[in-house]
Formats: sequence, C-alpha cells, structure tokens
Amino acid sequence: MNTRRDFLKKGALAGLSLAMLPELAKAVVNKQNGLTATKINLKKDSIILFQGDSITDGGRKRDSNACNTLEHLGNGYALFTSTQLLKTHAEKQLKIYNRGISGNKVYQLRERWDAEALAFSPDVLSILIGVNDYWHTLTGDYKGTVEIYENDLRALLKYTKDKLPNIQFVLCEPFTVKGGRAINDTQWFPMFDAYRLAAKKLADEFSAVFVPFQSAFDEALKLAPASYWAADGVHPDLPGRQLMADVWLEATGLKNSYEL
Amino acid sequence: MNTRRDFLKKGALAGLSLAMLPELAKAVVNKQNGLTATKINLKKDSIILFQGDSITDGGRKRDSNACNTLEHLGNGYALFTSTQLLKTHAEKQLKIYNRGISGNKVYQLRERWDAEALAFSPDVLSILIGVNDYWHTLTGDYKGTVEIYENDLRALLKYTKDKLPNIQFVLCEPFTVKGGRAINDTQWFPMFDAYRLAAKKLADEFSAVFVPFQSAFDEALKLAPASYWAADGVHPDLPGRQLMADVWLEATGLKNSYEL
Repeated sequence: MNTRRDFLKKGALAGLSLAMLPELAKAVVNKQNGLTATKINLKKDSIILFQGDSITDGGRKRDSNACNTLEHLGNGYALFTSTQLLKTHAEKQLKIYNRGISGNKVYQLRERWDAEALAFSPDVLSILIGVNDYWHTLTGDYKGTVEIYENDLRALLKYTKDKLPNIQFVLCEPFTVKGGRAINDTQWFPMFDAYRLAAKKLADEFSAVFVPFQSAFDEALKLAPASYWAADGVHPDLPGRQLMADVWLEATGLKNSYEL
Repeated sequence: MNTRRDFLKKGALAGLSLAMLPELAKAVVNKQNGLTATKINLKKDSIILFQGDSITDGGRKRDSNACNTLEHLGNGYALFTSTQLLKTHAEKQLKIYNRGISGNKVYQLRERWDAEALAFSPDVLSILIGVNDYWHTLTGDYKGTVEIYENDLRALLKYTKDKLPNIQFVLCEPFTVKGGRAINDTQWFPMFDAYRLAAKKLADEFSAVFVPFQSAFDEALKLAPASYWAADGVHPDLPGRQLMADVWLEATGLKNSYEL
C-alpha cells in the first residue's frame, strides 16, 4: 500500500492522473495482446460495423439503415462502445452500424454477409461470434464442431478481405461468464475453450485486433459474481456490457483520441 | 507538436499510457473546479439517486422500484454514467436509481421529494435541474425567475440535508448547447447564464460536487457542431450523453476505482 501511495503521490505531484494506473481492461489487454499488437486507425468519416449474435444485437431496431442512434445500435456492448467512440472521436464524424442478429452462428453470418456486411464497405469490422456455434450443439440439434467454426470463420474473413482489401478487422473472443445460469461446467469445458482459441488463431492469421473478453470476465469475477456481470453466463448485464466496451476500446487503441 | 510527441514518447518509454493526457472532461473539470474540489466517497452498498428533468429521465420505465436496470435508468446520461459506475466500482455493489421526470422545474421536484428522493435514503444525490425553469418562461405561461430558482433549490437542498445529514450532493450545471434548434441566442442569453451561476453558487454553499456541463459542451463544440452533440440544444444525443457521463465521473472523482 505504501508503495502505491508513494507512486500515486509522485504521479499527482507531476500533474498526472490516477487514470494512468492499470485498470482491469487495460491490464487484461496488455497481458493478452502485448504492447505491440495491431491497433485500429480511424480517419474522417470512417464506417464501423458491429456484427455477431444476440450479444451484439442487443435488441436493436431493424426498421431502417440509420447509424449512430440508440435504437439502431441496440443496448448491448455495441451501444456502450459506440457512445464512447462517438464522444472521443467527435472530429472524425464516425458512422457506426450494428447488424448483429440473435442466435447467429458463423454460417448464418455468411448467408447474409453481402447485404449486411460488405454492402456497408466498413473501414472497421468488428465480429463477435462463436458462443452459439457451441451452445446450440448442447441445446438444439445443431451438429457443428470447432473445426467447422474455425474453417467457416476463416473463409468469411478471407472472402471479406478479398472484397475489401483495406478493411481493419476486430475479432472478439467468444466467452462465457462462469457461474452464470446457462453455463454447466461439465457441458462447456474444456470443449468451448477450443472456440476461443480458434478465434485467437484467426485474429493472428488476419492481423486482426483481438479482443480478449474471456480474460476480462475472468478477472471481473474476482470483484463480483456472475450474477452481477452476466446472470445467464452468456448475455452480459449492464456492468458486463460496459466492461466489454472498455476492453474493446483498449484492444483497438481507440480509448483516447490522441495520436502519436 | 514535437514537444507533445517527445512527451508522449517519454511516457510510452516509462510504461505510461496515453490516458494520462488531459481529455476534454478532465481538462474542463480541473479548470472549473480545481484539483482540491469536493469529491464523492462510495462505500459498500452505496445508494445513488439521479434526479432532474427530461435530460435525466431519458425515457425510463416507471413501473417498478428496480435499480441498476437499463429500463429503469432510462437512456440518457444517467444510464451511461451508471454503467461506468457499476463496472468501475463492481466490488461496491452500488444501487443506482433514476427519478428524473420530463418537464420538471425545481418546485416540481419539491412536490415529489419525500417519496422520490428522501425515501431512497441516498448516499449520493445527483440533481440536474434548471433548463425548464428558464425555458418554460419563454414557451409557456410559467412565471418563474432566477431568484425563485435559486431560492427553491436552496430550500430543497437544505430540507434534504436536514433529513439526511450525511448525504453527498452532486449539483449539475444546467446547460444549453449553442447552435441547437431550440436555442435562440437573443431569447436565452445572458438571462440563462444566471441560472448556471446560481447552481454553481449553491454547489459551493452546500459543499456539493459541481458538474460543469456548460463548459464541457462549449469545449465539445470546437470538435463538432451542436447537431452532433444535442440537435435541439437541450437534450443531448448519444455523443453528448457520453460526454456528460465522462464529466460527471471526472467531477465526482469516481472515474477510477483506485483510492488514495
């Protein structure tokens, strides 16, 4: 404690803020991705698209092609990430869209990809997909495997990169919040871990920003139980959505507007 | 530029983050409130209540006494402030309520204060009120003056402090976003400025945290026009709501969970 106090005191004296201390999101990203990891570059009028399943969908309205609105961003992490992006990078006049759809697995992204991803010509494409690719093998009659997940997602990324060579990918780690209602340890682990590792592997293959959501929730569980962060273990509640936004912003390097 | 670059380079070399650079919210709060201003202390299970008018209300549901939910926090700055508080201070297990009501002026807060403020026994009470106290003198038949605003708000704060001696007040500056549709300069200024100054004066009288929203929006207008932050000049849009959350968190000292 004394050491930290002394450090803080020196920081305060030097006119620095407490914000420089490692926060959860920053600590996790630095640990998982390292300081030299890929970051996202925004330019004026950049288009950002969030794609994925229900966690991304967040109950968004689907009645128009509006960007940057509460209704069309939904109320999941995409909203809380977007409000920060819109505030922090105001001078960029970003256009942010959400096209997550509840229940989606990778092959379902592919089915609607031309109209609901490529058509936007996004500068930044953020994808969070995978929990249903495993979950639905437990709860429904879906017969997918981790190999299908990895190969389908690789093909999707390659197809996208071929069409939009300058696209910047943000690949989010599928995750579970252990202790949540829907997460039965013996049903989920270690099988689900393979999906997370596949996403990380593909992030590396495509020089994508990797967003380490699993590590963030694992750390967060040291502060409060699953019922606080994501009661069902799959769909984060408000604190979990804000945590995701923080981790996304840290991983992409877009938390601050200052550029070197 | 070179000086800033050198500074950044040294910061990076020392393992510090860009986050230590002054951001808009931090710069505004430090300038307006100074570094020795009152801050808020949270403890385990602290109760936080947001009170005010439509800007606080944010379309919240009024069907139950739930705290911490998306529906009951509304979708204004109270939501975006709350998600950060819930994430950053997870170990505190905060209970956050919103009782803003669209159209309210100070005297209307007083009419419902026992049931909708005191009954919560809040540890932290955040109040944003005043824009209607002036606006409705222009648009309706309300006959209030800035003296009535100041005296009513002082009486409300005194009444509250008498009932709840340990309460911590957060008094938010009423504001307009110049250039917004509803803000006709000759109708609003300098008359409205007196309401802002009254709020600041009362914050000082009651040792409340003062949240300098007007300065924040004035700075923000250097980055993007009113149509981006708050198209009507009164009710912030998403980027403006996030900016308000940032300023609130900076002013209260609750942006980070680390304590000296």
